[in-house]
Amino acid sequence: METKHLVVIGGSDAGISAALRARELDPSWRVTVVVADRYPNFSICGIPFYVGGEVLEHDHLAHRSHSDLEAAGLGLKLDTRAVGLDVAAQRVHLEGAPAVPYDSLVVGTGAVSRLPDVPGIDLPGVYPLRWIHEARRVRDALRDGVERIALVGGGYVNLELAEALAHRSLEVHLFERNVEPLKTVDPGLGARIRERLEAAGVIVHTKAGVRGIAEAERRLRVQADGAEAVVDRVIVSTGAVPAADLLAEAGVALGAGGALVVDDRMATSIDRVWAAGDCVHTLNRITGGYGYQPLGTTAHKQGRVAGANAIGGAARYRGTCGTQIVRVLGLVAARTGLDDRESEAAGFHPRTLQIETWDHKAYMPGAEPLVIRITGDAGSGRLLGVQMLGAVQTQAAKRIDVAASALFSGLGVAELGDLDLSYTPPLGAPWDPLQEAAHAWLAAG
Amino acid sequence: METKHLVVIGGSDAGISAALRARELDPSWRVTVVVADRYPNFSICGIPFYVGGEVLEHDHLAHRSHSDLEAAGLGLKLDTRAVGLDVAAQRVHLEGAPAVPYDSLVVGTGAVSRLPDVPGIDLPGVYPLRWIHEARRVRDALRDGVERIALVGGGYVNLELAEALAHRSLEVHLFERNVEPLKTVDPGLGARIRERLEAAGVIVHTKAGVRGIAEAERRLRVQADGAEAVVDRVIVSTGAVPAADLLAEAGVALGAGGALVVDDRMATSIDRVWAAGDCVHTLNRITGGYGYQPLGTTAHKQGRVAGANAIGGAARYRGTCGTQIVRVLGLVAARTGLDDRESEAAGFHPRTLQIETWDHKAYMPGAEPLVIRITGDAGSGRLLGVQMLGAVQTQAAKRIDVAASALFSGLGVAELGDLDLSYTPPLGAPWDPLQEAAHAWLAAG
Repeated sequence: METKHLVVIGGSDAGISAALRARELDPSWRVTVVVADRYPNFSICGIPFYVGGEVLEHDHLAHRSHSDLEAAGLGLKLDTRAVGLDVAAQRVHLEGAPAVPYDSLVVGTGAVSRLPDVPGIDLPGVYPLRWIHEARRVRDALRDGVERIALVGGGYVNLELAEALAHRSLEVHLFERNVEPLKTVDPGLGARIRERLEAAGVIVHTKAGVRGIAEAERRLRVQADGAEAVVDRVIVSTGAVPAADLLAEAGVALGAGGALVVDDRMATSIDRVWAAGDCVHTLNRITGGYGYQPLGTTAHKQGRVAGANAIGGAARYRGTCGTQIVRVLGLVAARTGLDDRESEAAGFHPRTLQIETWDHKAYMPGAEPLVIRITGDAGSGRLLGVQMLGAVQTQAAKRIDVAASALFSGLGVAELGDLDLSYTPPLGAPWDPLQEAAHAWLAAG
Repeated sequence: METKHLVVIGGSDAGISAALRARELDPSWRVTVVVADRYPNFSICGIPFYVGGEVLEHDHLAHRSHSDLEAAGLGLKLDTRAVGLDVAAQRVHLEGAPAVPYDSLVVGTGAVSRLPDVPGIDLPGVYPLRWIHEARRVRDALRDGVERIALVGGGYVNLELAEALAHRSLEVHLFERNVEPLKTVDPGLGARIRERLEAAGVIVHTKAGVRGIAEAERRLRVQADGAEAVVDRVIVSTGAVPAADLLAEAGVALGAGGALVVDDRMATSIDRVWAAGDCVHTLNRITGGYGYQPLGTTAHKQGRVAGANAIGGAARYRGTCGTQIVRVLGLVAARTGLDDRESEAAGFHPRTLQIETWDHKAYMPGAEPLVIRITGDAGSGRLLGVQMLGAVQTQAAKRIDVAASALFSGLGVAELGDLDLSYTPPLGAPWDPLQEAAHAWLAAG
């Protein structure tokens, strides 16, 4: 029997997950991974910590080394771009290399930075930040004679970067076009992140959409709504757009956010072609609809499903709950599920309640405040979403996962109160804070 | 309309929860709580920290003060024992006080220490430890001229106490009759707790069931299988037996562990009489059977259900998953669900896998090892139980709750891998350690 060939395009989370899963399930398949750069299986989420210096070497960001990947049976084609797809002939055209035939194809081309369309965005000294090669460039650019930095966009990457740069006593300006940074959580929670950044010396400009960047005596002037700053470098991290061209040109439709349309098996409309990760639209487990939400956790899961199915499996992606988290200067902000606006858009009747409590029994030393926002459907009582903010030691990072697990199973707010959660006085309360929030929500109904 | 009267017997977790819930739902009821001591609504779980000195005053262990409770509409009868029940007349007989008529009665009499039946167990200097008045006595007994302590029983209370006493440079002997302390988790995990205690100077005697205690020149000689020690004080914490007499004498049957039989509404076999907490048997959510598992979390939940139903509600207790946790010298040991033995007893075909991984991406500073044992049913793939051990900062205390939430919903091991859990490099991994364990379990199947 002829050896079958799985070709994977993309060496980040989705692609490598697919390739590894395929080999794990059926080592008789030959697996080739086409990687546009020389950094397969790197942790994109680790980039801010590398740029900021907490991670010393970019190599450390690799989940697995080249030899790990090769030992797992993956053939790597590095520095190689896939430029076209011949569906009828089942071949991928590569830039500067012979076309590769496939029996199954998984596409995990990821996303690219979405840059604001403003004058000066392409000036020297202005850096997008998403991929490892960009990270290396930014880290180099921050080395010598740099005193002032502008960070454009108040999302995860720039918040983590602001923390690292503040520690280096640089003058850091953060430009956020919304009312508060971290628009993925309620502005009240975003405000606490902003206050923490300001206390560390970061200058935060809110409601300050950037209008243009101009050269100013060997520096750069960042002009925004109601604010401006003259800086040495500008780092732009304002979201991502799916890198969908390869499959779009081959006929795959584009859905939410311009991402590739796939089903819950990660199948595209083209036979034998699968796609996963930041280039595809994402099933939302709560609404049943599709959106665009490029996240590493999702890419890993979708890649695992695509890899299984590409070699004949019947796996299904169960959907995202929208779980996200960031740590900034010792504070954790986390969310899962839907907020009020998203709930309404999905046809629910959301009711949200916020409590502030203690992470553990206050009679024990070290109790820390924990803010919990809980959203449920006023009619059915179904849990729709939870947001949390507290110090790292509140374990908010894992408490949010209790809510994420409840959302996965479609539990009601009342059932949160029924969960048998752990309790010991130094680390919790007999009613977990999440259950305290659930009870408060029910009592207010 | 005449005011209806709810009488609650017992002022600990179950009783107070019932009383508060009843008042919350229907303030037209008069609610009287009969409390055997003068310490209503105290945290029994906090006792080791009070005895050990981390909690300075016993008052701090009160979840709510007397005036809080009275403000919530509870009438308190302190230092009052209920000694009999007249079912036909709907009256509770009190020691040294007039009988109290009730329209509904909730019994939350809790449990008492189960002491080993050995010679010398009642000698002066030997202390049981379960209730606040015992805690005050023990704390006094540890004040002056005490150099050596024996702790009999290697469960939660004594492990927490051992930590506190080791910090005081007392000579501490811990006697555990099983192969390792903390029999609620796998011996391999118990061994790590023992090693941590030993490193802190605690002398741990394992397989050392106590055979007797004798006076020895103004000290006490503790004699156990293969070990003995001469000490100044002996603290005995070897489990609990339900305080079921009041209702047993009135005709309520006794079930698992000699605890009162109730249904999932917390109804007893006597009309208008409900019971909750450490005096009743406990529904296990996974097996559907009943066992005896006296825990504060369970008592709170059952009390809330009993309180609602006592005034005409239709609440149901959803069952325990057996979630338990302890922190000892910076280590957290936690469990939820069933272990192999319990799984087999319930008719499952358990398969258990243990992994040791990192709590977060190892490229970020401060990654700590985390041990996870995962048990699933070999046939159905259903998740049956999880145990964890790691430093406090691994957030094992809340990671176990993700498993507890999954168990509540009856998820499969594979579905653990599908959960949308949070990820940021300093606090997790794109596949959460729990999901890594799930995948390893699946791959080994």
